[in-house]
Amino acid sequence: MNIADLQARLRAFAAERRWEPYQTPKNLAMAMVVEAAELVEIFQWKTAEESLALDEATRVHLGEEIADVMLYLLQIADHCQVDMAAAVERKLALNAKKYPPLASGSGD
Amino acid sequence: MNIADLQARLRAFAAERRWEPYQTPKNLAMAMVVEAAELVEIFQWKTAEESLALDEATRVHLGEEIADVMLYLLQIADHCQVDMAAAVERKLALNAKKYPPLASGSGD
Amino acid sequence: MNIADLQARLRAFAAERRWEPYQTPKNLAMAMVVEAAELVEIFQWKTAEESLALDEATRVHLGEEIADVMLYLLQIADHCQVDMAAAVERKLALNAKKYPPLASGSGD
Amino acid sequence: MNIADLQARLRAFAAERRWEPYQTPKNLAMAMVVEAAELVEIFQWKTAEESLALDEATRVHLGEEIADVMLYLLQIADHCQVDMAAAVERKLALNAKKYPPLASGSGD
Repeated sequence: MNIADLQARLRAFAAERRWEPYQTPKNLAMAMVVEAAELVEIFQWKTAEESLALDEATRVHLGEEIADVMLYLLQIADHCQVDMAAAVERKLALNAKKYPPLASGSGD
Repeated sequence: MNIADLQARLRAFAAERRWEPYQTPKNLAMAMVVEAAELVEIFQWKTAEESLALDEATRVHLGEEIADVMLYLLQIADHCQVDMAAAVERKLALNAKKYPPLASGSGD
Repeated sequence: MNIADLQARLRAFAAERRWEPYQTPKNLAMAMVVEAAELVEIFQWKTAEESLALDEATRVHLGEEIADVMLYLLQIADHCQVDMAAAVERKLALNAKKYPPLASGSGD
Repeated sequence: MNIADLQARLRAFAAERRWEPYQTPKNLAMAMVVEAAELVEIFQWKTAEESLALDEATRVHLGEEIADVMLYLLQIADHCQVDMAAAVERKLALNAKKYPPLASGSGD
């Protein structure tokens, strides 16, 4: 996935529709959490097991919600000059420090 | 950003911590919306203008929240066999059809 | 608003539809955040000023989303034996301690 | 729970801290979904069963999050002139029409 390319396309998309005035980081964050909740909605009444065995139509729907959240994340990062790939790598390093792996061979 | 590579690393990370039983798509969706709301929290009391002019510390914080949402999206896509890059392209095409661009030269 | 009465009606409503197996606190929490995000959606592209001057149709819509969140809160409190009125009073007291009022007469 | 009384107290609380400029319905909606997600966080790694058997400390924590969401709902309703009790009754009536009860005696 080419982040810079996607961000450029999203900027052009917004410009062609004159959406720029609406696309403040504050508003994009609100739109992002709305899409995040639409993703949650897919799973809200499902059991853990059912959530692991989605049918094809639900997987397509899920893909749309994942994409919606992703597209807003890309725009927030772009408008706030956050390097998304670097941020992801930095977070992975922080998580590795915060949650040390279990010792191999450790039992319960 | 190499999606498959990140997903493989996240799987290994979870395995090394024996987190797999917790990582159902249902639970990952909940964790994702929690991180999405932490991103919203950054902007909740800011004006639109302030949201466009974050200081460096806030941008670093924002990068962490963007990464957190992204990492859960990657895991949801992985566990549900959703091709994230394809889903993003498909959504961009749907959006282009749903929201036709304004005619160039059209005034207000 | 009579909390216990509303909770009893919601329990009867769920029973008459055989929804009880779905109404775990975990699932109700998911449904609640979905409704919370639908409330956010009303405001996502509005300016601060526009959010203060809703038209009648939007106020009716907002009332529905407020009610949806409220109804899930009532059910979560009921299913988890949380006394909602007491929890609200306790939180108000905590907030008063956490955020002391400005001294009267203090200027900027 | 006396809604009008709580709303009056919340208005006084905000005024004593000069928070009014921040408390637009848009901002309150954002703060509300942040609290809603903090409630979700309590349940994110719990099984359905565990979510039904919270220990005392978790129930206290849950009460705080329920109260936080409730307090923002009250403020949104107040600032937007939504009659919360009426909205709840109206929504219950709509739900009763939308989801007819199962016929008594109907088997599977």
